[in-house]
Amino acid sequence: MQYPEPVAKLIDSYMKLPGIGVKTASRLAFFTLDMRDEDVNAFAKSLISVKRDLHYCSICGNITEEDPCEICRDKTRDRSTILVVEEPKDVMAMEKMREYKGLYHVLNGVLSPMEGTGPDDLTIAALIQRLHDETVKEVIIATNATTEGEATAMYLSRLIKPAGIKVTRLAHGLAVGSDIEYADEVTLLKAVEGRREI
Amino acid sequence: MQYPEPVAKLIDSYMKLPGIGVKTASRLAFFTLDMRDEDVNAFAKSLISVKRDLHYCSICGNITEEDPCEICRDKTRDRSTILVVEEPKDVMAMEKMREYKGLYHVLNGVLSPMEGTGPDDLTIAALIQRLHDETVKEVIIATNATTEGEATAMYLSRLIKPAGIKVTRLAHGLAVGSDIEYADEVTLLKAVEGRREI
Repeated sequence: MQYPEPVAKLIDSYMKLPGIGVKTASRLAFFTLDMRDEDVNAFAKSLISVKRDLHYCSICGNITEEDPCEICRDKTRDRSTILVVEEPKDVMAMEKMREYKGLYHVLNGVLSPMEGTGPDDLTIAALIQRLHDETVKEVIIATNATTEGEATAMYLSRLIKPAGIKVTRLAHGLAVGSDIEYADEVTLLKAVEGRREI
Repeated sequence: MQYPEPVAKLIDSYMKLPGIGVKTASRLAFFTLDMRDEDVNAFAKSLISVKRDLHYCSICGNITEEDPCEICRDKTRDRSTILVVEEPKDVMAMEKMREYKGLYHVLNGVLSPMEGTGPDDLTIAALIQRLHDETVKEVIIATNATTEGEATAMYLSRLIKPAGIKVTRLAHGLAVGSDIEYADEVTLLKAVEGRREI
């Protein structure tokens, strides 16, 4: 005996999500059974909508409902700086800071030989294309402070610098409000290396 | 700046699931963006289907596409025994055992004063109704070995016994293959209490 087909199918679908195994998927499926009709309908609609109504911006690679995206269309932004991030959510994090007024470029991933992600799987060609525009003076590389993020930053730096464009990387160091005692050695080392006169 | 509306809505939907906060919901939403169209469509369809095509069996309370459910309709099953469980997934667990040939009754919850779940929120009235049929000789209570499960078992036992029907409870003890060293005290106590001659 098995679960009724609708439940079995929903469990299969939940299991396609990252970090969700068969136990959690079953729990979620049974939870869904008890959810309000309108919430489940909204859920189904938003799944369809996210695939149908969202596209990648043909300029910066960010997700957007309209192409080009809001930021690329915004004439008030500083077109001399491009900040390169891994994912669309990194753009959101940067925008929350309300300080950066330049443009973005979303790689949609990082170089990862382990996972078979090479330069052609990212939006690197499109980034290089954008640099042909002479208004671009600086590329800020804001990939994550992981091994892959660092490797991608190095790769991009070597690719862009010959064009005479300034390439910078976000500073590494102690998180604001954090204790030295709990900082890992590499972060501490980076914090010492990057020390500034006060 | 916020996420494009389709993403924001999908994040909201994922956050309605148990144990999923805003960070995981965002991660799942962006993962969904990169899923194959057919997988996302199947996901949306199964959400709709689980609400539209599944019902609770009017006899045993289990989920089913047809009412009464497969097990209640099955003439080959032993109608003298009813095994009472908390949730539909417990029926699945029992059926996997391939040993039990009686009927089931799904409470769809447990008595929990803390969460405001009383007898009327469970399918207890329907269970009592079933016992008027004189073919029922034994009710096996297989609620979970939790405080609420035990309390529900006691409550049901007091309710059913006066009708002259045998009420039994699943045995407590050491899990097969487990080490005594790692068993908690209460389980060990139950295992000693329930010891059998060999």
